Amino acid sequence: MTLAGENRLDQQIRFIVELDQLKLVLRQTLLIDGSRRENTAEHSWHLATMALTLFEYAPPEVDLTRVLKMLVLHDIVEIRAGDTFCYDAEGNLDKAAREQEAATYLYGLLPADLGDEMRGLWEEFEAGLTPSARFANALDRLQPLLHNYRTDGGTWRIHQITREQVLRRMSPIQEGAPALWPYVLRVIDDSCAQGFILP
Amino acid sequence: MTLAGENRLDQQIRFIVELDQLKLVLRQTLLIDGSRRENTAEHSWHLATMALTLFEYAPPEVDLTRVLKMLVLHDIVEIRAGDTFCYDAEGNLDKAAREQEAATYLYGLLPADLGDEMRGLWEEFEAGLTPSARFANALDRLQPLLHNYRTDGGTWRIHQITREQVLRRMSPIQEGAPALWPYVLRVIDDSCAQGFILP
Repeated sequence: MTLAGENRLDQQIRFIVELDQLKLVLRQTLLIDGSRRENTAEHSWHLATMALTLFEYAPPEVDLTRVLKMLVLHDIVEIRAGDTFCYDAEGNLDKAAREQEAATYLYGLLPADLGDEMRGLWEEFEAGLTPSARFANALDRLQPLLHNYRTDGGTWRIHQITREQVLRRMSPIQEGAPALWPYVLRVIDDSCAQGFILP
Repeated sequence: MTLAGENRLDQQIRFIVELDQLKLVLRQTLLIDGSRRENTAEHSWHLATMALTLFEYAPPEVDLTRVLKMLVLHDIVEIRAGDTFCYDAEGNLDKAAREQEAATYLYGLLPADLGDEMRGLWEEFEAGLTPSARFANALDRLQPLLHNYRTDGGTWRIHQITREQVLRRMSPIQEGAPALWPYVLRVIDDSCAQGFILP
């Protein structure tokens, strides 16, 4: 994938330049002021700030550095695979295949040792089997919950999402950051009471 | 600054919600496809990806975790202080005072221990006295250089910036990431040759 004549630093710079496109990938989530949809680059930054702010609620085995790395990288495949709305059953059928292809291209821009290390972090996030990956996944679910709650239901209301769908979607928080689960349940209950989520 | 009756987690969530506004702060820099100006949240994410990609060029004393934390937080004061264009001499006169005020407000939303820790990281970045802060500052200068270079001069051309101004602006890279300095000089030379920067 690397170009003939490129040296190591040239490859790294080309990867950094390519990543700029993540700023153009729009998610379903609205900004909290409701003015526009969020893009995936700023979403990833917001998750990193959440890791710093909420780290005390992580189970003791969680490694903050690993969490930060995973959050920074977790969605870069969307540059080529696009953002798939989490409640879109059809789009989610081939999501994994599209993202694997994107990962092969993007991480393939880098020198092999570095590309392999980063792809490994992304695969760890995706598999969600380590405490750090589970905590990172929990934050990735918590952030849109906060956005929807603060935008009077946001995409929940637009897409008529039910309490059961939200509970299922949020369940990784119960696994990855159990200390935050009572808060999540409180937000979901209040969102139902206010009509943001269908019963 | 915290509200009566708020518990610790409520304060942390309020801080996270407040940070969403950084996505609305526009910088002078253009996205690499030239389609719009970059916002400060996505800029901060891009710097974090650069830290992961270019860490091997950091001097040996640099602590990657500290760098990531600083980069994630380094510009949140712009939520209240706005982005000050680096070549705007007048705007830079009261920049420090506006940013200190913003820091007092924003970090004051948090429980004191956490707010103090984060403000300390931001002040370390601003002072630029530790190897980690110097490396973080170097990346903060390198990113707009890449953007301007890849957008046929971008804001350099719009504001008729000279080679001497760019060299002065980029000098923290020589201090914080000397291994990247030859690359920076090559980009500046080529930008002069192509007329992106005035001689």
